[in-house]
Amino acid sequence: MNVEKLRSIVGEDWIITKREQMENYLTDATILAARPEVADEVIVVKPADSKEISEILKLANIENTPVFIRGGGTGLCGGAIPTMDGIVLSTERLDRIEEIDKDNLMVVAQAGVTLGTMLEAVEDAGLFFPPHPGDEGAQVGGLVACNAGGTRAVKYGVIRNFVKGLEVVLPSGEIVNLGGKLLKNNQGLDLLHLMINSGGILGVITKVIFRLYPKVASSGTLVIAYDNRHDAIDGVPVILRSGVIPLAIEYTDRDVIEASAKHLGMKWPSTVGNAYLIVMLIGASEDEVYTQAEQISDICQKSNALDILIAESKTEQADILKMRSEIFSGVLSVAADGLDVTVPPASVGILMDKIDEIAKQFDTTILMCGHAGDGNLHPLLLKELCDKGIFKQVKRAIYQAAIELDGVITGEHGLGLIRIPDIDLYPGGKTWNLMRGIKKVFDPNNILNPGRAIP
Amino acid sequence: MNVEKLRSIVGEDWIITKREQMENYLTDATILAARPEVADEVIVVKPADSKEISEILKLANIENTPVFIRGGGTGLCGGAIPTMDGIVLSTERLDRIEEIDKDNLMVVAQAGVTLGTMLEAVEDAGLFFPPHPGDEGAQVGGLVACNAGGTRAVKYGVIRNFVKGLEVVLPSGEIVNLGGKLLKNNQGLDLLHLMINSGGILGVITKVIFRLYPKVASSGTLVIAYDNRHDAIDGVPVILRSGVIPLAIEYTDRDVIEASAKHLGMKWPSTVGNAYLIVMLIGASEDEVYTQAEQISDICQKSNALDILIAESKTEQADILKMRSEIFSGVLSVAADGLDVTVPPASVGILMDKIDEIAKQFDTTILMCGHAGDGNLHPLLLKELCDKGIFKQVKRAIYQAAIELDGVITGEHGLGLIRIPDIDLYPGGKTWNLMRGIKKVFDPNNILNPGRAIP
Repeated sequence: MNVEKLRSIVGEDWIITKREQMENYLTDATILAARPEVADEVIVVKPADSKEISEILKLANIENTPVFIRGGGTGLCGGAIPTMDGIVLSTERLDRIEEIDKDNLMVVAQAGVTLGTMLEAVEDAGLFFPPHPGDEGAQVGGLVACNAGGTRAVKYGVIRNFVKGLEVVLPSGEIVNLGGKLLKNNQGLDLLHLMINSGGILGVITKVIFRLYPKVASSGTLVIAYDNRHDAIDGVPVILRSGVIPLAIEYTDRDVIEASAKHLGMKWPSTVGNAYLIVMLIGASEDEVYTQAEQISDICQKSNALDILIAESKTEQADILKMRSEIFSGVLSVAADGLDVTVPPASVGILMDKIDEIAKQFDTTILMCGHAGDGNLHPLLLKELCDKGIFKQVKRAIYQAAIELDGVITGEHGLGLIRIPDIDLYPGGKTWNLMRGIKKVFDPNNILNPGRAIP
Repeated sequence: MNVEKLRSIVGEDWIITKREQMENYLTDATILAARPEVADEVIVVKPADSKEISEILKLANIENTPVFIRGGGTGLCGGAIPTMDGIVLSTERLDRIEEIDKDNLMVVAQAGVTLGTMLEAVEDAGLFFPPHPGDEGAQVGGLVACNAGGTRAVKYGVIRNFVKGLEVVLPSGEIVNLGGKLLKNNQGLDLLHLMINSGGILGVITKVIFRLYPKVASSGTLVIAYDNRHDAIDGVPVILRSGVIPLAIEYTDRDVIEASAKHLGMKWPSTVGNAYLIVMLIGASEDEVYTQAEQISDICQKSNALDILIAESKTEQADILKMRSEIFSGVLSVAADGLDVTVPPASVGILMDKIDEIAKQFDTTILMCGHAGDGNLHPLLLKELCDKGIFKQVKRAIYQAAIELDGVITGEHGLGLIRIPDIDLYPGGKTWNLMRGIKKVFDPNNILNPGRAIP
């Protein structure tokens, strides 16, 4: 690698070559037991803008050097980990919110702006960004590259639905703009949507335009306690069909959410039951939210709810969201991996049963949380499975169960790096070849995030 | 072309070789003056299923024969017109709704099911499909291939937001399934979203899975009359920011909507003003819709509304929607083309002013309707412009105005065939090459809808 050339592009202060100074740039949030190994020869660069990124990619093409794009490092599938000798390209300096456009209800943010910073700015402007994909340290470029999901996707959908414009540096170094502040745009093949969930293999996202919504007048969060998983899940399809469309319908085991609460130094509000639904509601008035809450309470009571709490204050609601969003951190000490299987929403109960059977079959405990309203579960596999040498078997049994229910092995975390070896279970056939062909069109020398995002 | 081989694939009854019997398969809804010429040697085939389509495409590859996919023939940009000697592949026999899945809130429909048939079936099942992209004779495969927009896209978005699964026959003849009944799916590059608005150049869509919503309890449609266009448009950004999110916010000139009413043998309900907004509202109760209607009435009165009518009965609302949806038919006798420019929603007023200036400059009348809430206008150019030899100049002046406002030349109709010659005005740069590269990955022999959808 031509370190001097890199140094001349980003400047002396924005390059790291000493290993001991770059530890924070070498891993992401992939759970330790599943985390791939870092390569020996890595250089970290922190370009200031898309022009410097363009220069770096041009150089990488000449030298055939792999470039690993790094956003907030909150990914759970190893996508940002430099597993080959090469360059780590951090987008942290692209950290400016360029505009909150109140007339068009759009925010224009550079790729390195964190979710937390953006949410705060949007709220300060009196507007609303519905999705809340987990860790607020994630950067908006990464949210788009990974089509993040998270909680609050039931009513308005995942990140994809909010992306209206992108600036992208192509692997060749060319800088292109896709879309804009537009609600309708049908000019040719939709490269904007192809970039969403491309996992950084088709270009470096440097700027994002998200659609916003007017601030909601009122909101409420229900915590519904059940004796067991099955009762909790039983009510979900009924809620979805009821006509009330919640912002989020989350499921969590008691043990899992209490671990998260403990980790954060917070207190989980419910003291009864073993399984919970968290239902987030929004409306144009307190009355509207109250009516929705009543309808949902009725449904849940019919599916054997033990207790229903309503959090109405902003603080209480934010606390519940925080405990849910950082749930992975709470189980890090015991978990080997958190899966991301997704099935048609009405099949979540069946999948949950199958996972219970698999746990019994392999004589283990499989902890559980997930976005029940989206059909997206995160079974947590314990480290003991690695010790017993059956981790891979259990994981693949769960994948197989999801696929048999017409599901997928990853709903929101993406394939990244660590999910690719198991994709053989999915009947993708010809589609993988098409993806490889598209990658070649964008990146003929395979310099950008090689080995990630597609099989 | 090997007619005998085609005949053996689809059967004697499902092939047309005589020109006088195929007139209905040779044009689409492109306004006459802008319609491209049909080629001399055309064969129409009507395959029964995706397997027969696969055989046809395999044959076309061997013989290097262009295949033009035909859905409902309601496209406005010539995309379905066979302008080269080749095969017209009609999807009309793929006309079965395979399932309305009430548990997952999804409909599974073969590509040839019409929008009208699907809407009726969905309603009969007690569910709701929000978008209403114009002519109900459109087929669902075409809706996806063109990412149809239309009215009712403000609250839930365009067709793209509803597509969850597709069956596609690739140009090579391989049959693939993309997505499923899934609300989250991040398995590799998103070929499903790449197919949406691909204009049939990447594959033949043979089956569609759309997300549905629970039936809305209550709805209402406001018709708001203004003296002039500018007053009408002035209120739109204020409505969008108000917190009420209507299902649709439409704009139309009085002359245009009255021509549509006359064409349909119906009566436009308002008798005052020259310019109208049509605002469609839905809610969980009559009270909720009434509250929304009051808020919007207040806003519109401040922007000089002359009169506000509220249609509450289902019939009245359906009539207004019909007059709006078939608006192009009413102006066919006078119009040379209906454009499809789109700008950031808050810039619609400026675009409207610029179009008025262009009309003055070229001494013509430019009629106007459009989806004001989406920033999507349909200026209607009169036939007199062709006679005067200035049609192209006026059209390009309007495109230029939209592009200068960070807009696009097509928001919902797509490039089809007839919009491609003007795409040089748009700063697409490198992106067109990427689209051509992707086309080549899918269709190396360029047999499917050649010359369409991308420049």
